[in-house]
Amino acid sequence: MPDDFTFATLLKISAELESAEIGKVIHCKSIQIGFVSDTIVANSLMSMYGFSMKWVREVVARVHKVFNEIAIHSVYLEEPDKSIVLTWNKGDPLPPRKAFVIAFLNGKSNLMIIDLESDQITSHEIYQGSGYPMLTFDDMRFATQAPLTNPEFIKIIAERGVRLSDLTCSPLAVGWYGENEEGRRLVKVQCYSNEGTINFYMRPIEGLTVTVDVDNREILRISHTGRGIPIPAATDTDYRHVAKNKPEEMMKPLNPISIEQPKGPSFSVEGHMVRWANWEFHLKPDPRAGVIISRAVVHDSNTGRTKRVMYKGFSSELFVPYMDPAEAWYFKTYMDAGEYGMGLTAMSLVPLNDCPRNAYYMDGVFTATDGKPYVQSNMMCVFERYAGDIGWRHSETPISGMEIREARPKVTLVVRMAASVGNYDYILDWEFQTDGLIRVKVGLSGMLMVKGTHLQNLNQMEKAERDAMTGPLVSENVIGVVHDHYVTFHLDMDIDGADNSFVKVNLEKEETSPGESPRKSYLKVKREVAQTEKEAQVKLKLYDPAEFHVVNHGKRSRLGNPAGYKVVPGGTAASLLDHTDPPQFRASFTNNQIWVTPYNKSEQWAGGLLVWQSKGEDTLAVWSERDRPIDNKDIVLWYTLGFHHIPCQEDFPIMPTVSSSFDLKPVNFFEKNPILRSSPNVEEDLPFCRATASV
Amino acid sequence: MPDDFTFATLLKISAELESAEIGKVIHCKSIQIGFVSDTIVANSLMSMYGFSMKWVREVVARVHKVFNEIAIHSVYLEEPDKSIVLTWNKGDPLPPRKAFVIAFLNGKSNLMIIDLESDQITSHEIYQGSGYPMLTFDDMRFATQAPLTNPEFIKIIAERGVRLSDLTCSPLAVGWYGENEEGRRLVKVQCYSNEGTINFYMRPIEGLTVTVDVDNREILRISHTGRGIPIPAATDTDYRHVAKNKPEEMMKPLNPISIEQPKGPSFSVEGHMVRWANWEFHLKPDPRAGVIISRAVVHDSNTGRTKRVMYKGFSSELFVPYMDPAEAWYFKTYMDAGEYGMGLTAMSLVPLNDCPRNAYYMDGVFTATDGKPYVQSNMMCVFERYAGDIGWRHSETPISGMEIREARPKVTLVVRMAASVGNYDYILDWEFQTDGLIRVKVGLSGMLMVKGTHLQNLNQMEKAERDAMTGPLVSENVIGVVHDHYVTFHLDMDIDGADNSFVKVNLEKEETSPGESPRKSYLKVKREVAQTEKEAQVKLKLYDPAEFHVVNHGKRSRLGNPAGYKVVPGGTAASLLDHTDPPQFRASFTNNQIWVTPYNKSEQWAGGLLVWQSKGEDTLAVWSERDRPIDNKDIVLWYTLGFHHIPCQEDFPIMPTVSSSFDLKPVNFFEKNPILRSSPNVEEDLPFCRATASV
Repeated sequence: MPDDFTFATLLKISAELESAEIGKVIHCKSIQIGFVSDTIVANSLMSMYGFSMKWVREVVARVHKVFNEIAIHSVYLEEPDKSIVLTWNKGDPLPPRKAFVIAFLNGKSNLMIIDLESDQITSHEIYQGSGYPMLTFDDMRFATQAPLTNPEFIKIIAERGVRLSDLTCSPLAVGWYGENEEGRRLVKVQCYSNEGTINFYMRPIEGLTVTVDVDNREILRISHTGRGIPIPAATDTDYRHVAKNKPEEMMKPLNPISIEQPKGPSFSVEGHMVRWANWEFHLKPDPRAGVIISRAVVHDSNTGRTKRVMYKGFSSELFVPYMDPAEAWYFKTYMDAGEYGMGLTAMSLVPLNDCPRNAYYMDGVFTATDGKPYVQSNMMCVFERYAGDIGWRHSETPISGMEIREARPKVTLVVRMAASVGNYDYILDWEFQTDGLIRVKVGLSGMLMVKGTHLQNLNQMEKAERDAMTGPLVSENVIGVVHDHYVTFHLDMDIDGADNSFVKVNLEKEETSPGESPRKSYLKVKREVAQTEKEAQVKLKLYDPAEFHVVNHGKRSRLGNPAGYKVVPGGTAASLLDHTDPPQFRASFTNNQIWVTPYNKSEQWAGGLLVWQSKGEDTLAVWSERDRPIDNKDIVLWYTLGFHHIPCQEDFPIMPTVSSSFDLKPVNFFEKNPILRSSPNVEEDLPFCRATASV
Repeated sequence: MPDDFTFATLLKISAELESAEIGKVIHCKSIQIGFVSDTIVANSLMSMYGFSMKWVREVVARVHKVFNEIAIHSVYLEEPDKSIVLTWNKGDPLPPRKAFVIAFLNGKSNLMIIDLESDQITSHEIYQGSGYPMLTFDDMRFATQAPLTNPEFIKIIAERGVRLSDLTCSPLAVGWYGENEEGRRLVKVQCYSNEGTINFYMRPIEGLTVTVDVDNREILRISHTGRGIPIPAATDTDYRHVAKNKPEEMMKPLNPISIEQPKGPSFSVEGHMVRWANWEFHLKPDPRAGVIISRAVVHDSNTGRTKRVMYKGFSSELFVPYMDPAEAWYFKTYMDAGEYGMGLTAMSLVPLNDCPRNAYYMDGVFTATDGKPYVQSNMMCVFERYAGDIGWRHSETPISGMEIREARPKVTLVVRMAASVGNYDYILDWEFQTDGLIRVKVGLSGMLMVKGTHLQNLNQMEKAERDAMTGPLVSENVIGVVHDHYVTFHLDMDIDGADNSFVKVNLEKEETSPGESPRKSYLKVKREVAQTEKEAQVKLKLYDPAEFHVVNHGKRSRLGNPAGYKVVPGGTAASLLDHTDPPQFRASFTNNQIWVTPYNKSEQWAGGLLVWQSKGEDTLAVWSERDRPIDNKDIVLWYTLGFHHIPCQEDFPIMPTVSSSFDLKPVNFFEKNPILRSSPNVEEDLPFCRATASV
């Protein structure tokens, strides 16, 4: 967080903005401007979120008279009701703006709603459920520093041959495993040696775990099971381009290559509204979800109508269980969105490398513990992608005697962010296609969470030693522990309106009757409308195939087909953990790949509102068990993307990106191919380029 | 085939080439050059395939003295034994070059091997199995024209209100359904009206099937079950850019966008050898498979060693069953590679639209019925792709106190072809990544195979009518019949050598013992080496997950991990047809998603050598049942990519591309991340571009 960006600066900026024009195009390039545009947007409903946070801070301070003791963990916009948002038109008076604040005081989570007009706290509830809010930066700093002054810890570190000055420590979520994880906020701290490398993750001080009580500011327990396990070497773990130990590059270097748009991008950004080709949507940074896409509508080039597709879509929760039951590992069953925040951990993207040259960047604005806003600059990027792919094509062969060669290039719009949750990097892409398809892609990179071992080579090992390993050897003394990743998306689909239904379009094998046909079997489509939530709990089966449609039975095409979108799974994985295992129970939203719930403003976070040390009594699975009616209602689709990750040497010291994705694809949403009339590329339109050097 | 390109031209060109330098870089831009380069390459082992076909024609003619009666269906290179190819070094004398010829004479398929040195037929076999070779262009032309002079057919066409002059007819494979499909080569002909549109596929004359015997040149049967079914309208079915009926474009047009490489591509093409970054492979057009990638090796930037990855990879067979048991539809269960040829149907790619501006094009050279060679120009393209993706990345958050922002752009090399098998277009991509990954992607576009109906609107229908439909209504009077696509790939992996093993790396749920850990369950890796073929017959299961590795136990990393590659399935589908249903029996290679067979030169085509009307006694499934040993042997991996296609209105009148893919990914094949040292993009390297207009 930039130091020069104080509360005073904020007040000054806000003052200057009194007369600012609503919805004015502002490019978020610098910190100040980034914040300005956010403030402006906050003043228009278009944002649906965000607002200047000074009020929040003032109000909380005045009301509680305890400003110095209270810790503000999160400040969100308290969203206006969906009905208000949907009926609001440009020019109408704005609905009352409210803030939802999660603050921590005297060991309790305070949930407050603050009316920004009247400057009053209109609702104040002490949270009674299990679980705590995301730790603040101060909490984490305390936790990671506390061990450094502890004599026992200092002694162990010395035994392990590491200098205190070479330590880098991580504040780890403890999960929930019974009474030990109740009644106070706990952090488990594990440390690494950064001697000789910035890639400390590859140098774990294995088997040393310090449990810290951040409420009472004390160390509860130091567990040391790693005595004698060497610290893996630093050799060649530094991945930075500037790293001195860079060996000769033995790969033929590639000539420069770039996506070029000499006439500029085809999209516009007004505040947080993005408009491109036939798409229009609101793009919002969020401290917890990272990126929120809302009010996505598409313009139907056949009918000229603009139709609603998705009211709100975002990554609601992640679940990352490691597969090692040992003392120093069993608790590593993270829920990254609710425990660390996908937005809070999304650092500035690297121009030309994280996003192409033609990208536009957008900042995030979040709150610090003391309620002060700060800016995460270049937290998201938006760019048009041309990958050489084909939108549609057909040629005729000599048989028909027609000389036809028609093809159209595929150009898409990508919204990207990358969260660095400790060692791991999650690249989240929302890709919009002109044919109406939305592809949601998750890429994994960054560092493995590795385990130190005395083992160096499989050949020296006894079978027993090999069998005891909880993952492959990825370097000398380094085990890449097997783990899973699950990313659960909240997809509030509003297909051409709010009242939708979830339809399982099954493909079932039919046998022909004797004499009916030389064929014995064929597949038949059987449509099944889910009446209640339980009927929409889906486990994917290769040999029991179905399409999964969200349709609007009230909006039919000229042929009578209901307007719909289907969710198209890509390569995925399912959690095999025992349903009664504490981590799986807390992450029971991964028990199915697909769920459908009736829209409920309070059901946004699949793992519950507060998940740090939560028991799992407030998850998507629990809501779904209520088995509410979902036919012809405002419904929310939930999809979970999964990865099993068995590491390999190629993942050391940093992982080449591995990706998986799913699609939201129109089904009879358009009357016909919506890109039938798109234009082909012609040479005259393409840019004239030369190597910059020659300029 | 270009008329001016005669046998004489060929002789002339060949003469001029006597002194041509071997392996010289020649860019295949025009027909002549295209053929020339092919001839040159034919003279070097590098090609492994191809040769000037004049000899073949001469030899066959001389030996049989029946040149005018004999039909040459296919001419392939008779590949030298793998051992010879692998031990050959540049400069060594070339091994004897031989041609494998499939010719048809007196109702029999003749399989001949011709020695091109001695000009002798060294082997000549009359094929005894079921099935016939791909039809020749002449066969198909005869079949589609025969009905036009048949009085009964003419009468029916008149009844259906179509002018003979407006007919376009398709020669359809008949499959095998018993004695009716034995003893003679049959074609089923169905026709469309092209009145008012070039997109005749959307105007079927439903329920009219003419069965033609192309051996005895006679019409066997005319089946007309479609009496009274209207021909769907031509309105707005034309997809061409030049189409007059183009309505106003209602979509915001996109600004020009292009992949630019001002310093040119980073790959080189010598004859058919492609070299890029750390990759080197042979690229070969094939009349049946389309594209064959062979002898793919990768340069290990860590060790400096060049390692073998894949000896040969190609799409061996396709299976496309339609799900309609009716008289006019039941037989539509195509095997496109063996029946029509993915190469023979791959027309010229459209520059700037099928492939980006920076693409390099390569021609195909095939044989006509009379043995004359002809050129399929621009049949394949090769280009570098930069899609704005990330090779690897990591940022540090403020917690660690380190200011790290590192990312690398992902640039890949794509080899593409697009086969137009009648109505359907198959886009085949082989994508090579610098991290060692190979992505094989199949895209579907072109036209649906649709069924005419009197139905126009779901709302008017009785339930019985709706239930009887074999697919959704995609336009007035047009049903998009449900169907599947299966593409089975032959992947002769040679992971750092020939002797490999297939290992199922299972992830199994383990329960902890009481008191062992607060965790109840976790996943454990269990490696299972397949000893015989049956142990390598794999059906994918989401809840019984595994990785599928091809490893070389004789080549281990410094840590003792065997060098390996894994096949990573993407979104896929499985065939649910009855295993005893004739089409599924012929396509029993789709009974599993993964198979492994010991290398056998004769086992290249998953559906058998000759598949037109084949019974299915020579398929991958039959070979695999022999259950031969496969551990530590030269093995071939077979993977089937599947699609279920339930059409929708967006697929009318031409389908936006739908893609699926699978990956071949290194696993402990490299000692560490092979792109650790790749360079980031920097502004100075990127091109300087402006709109061409402004030049």
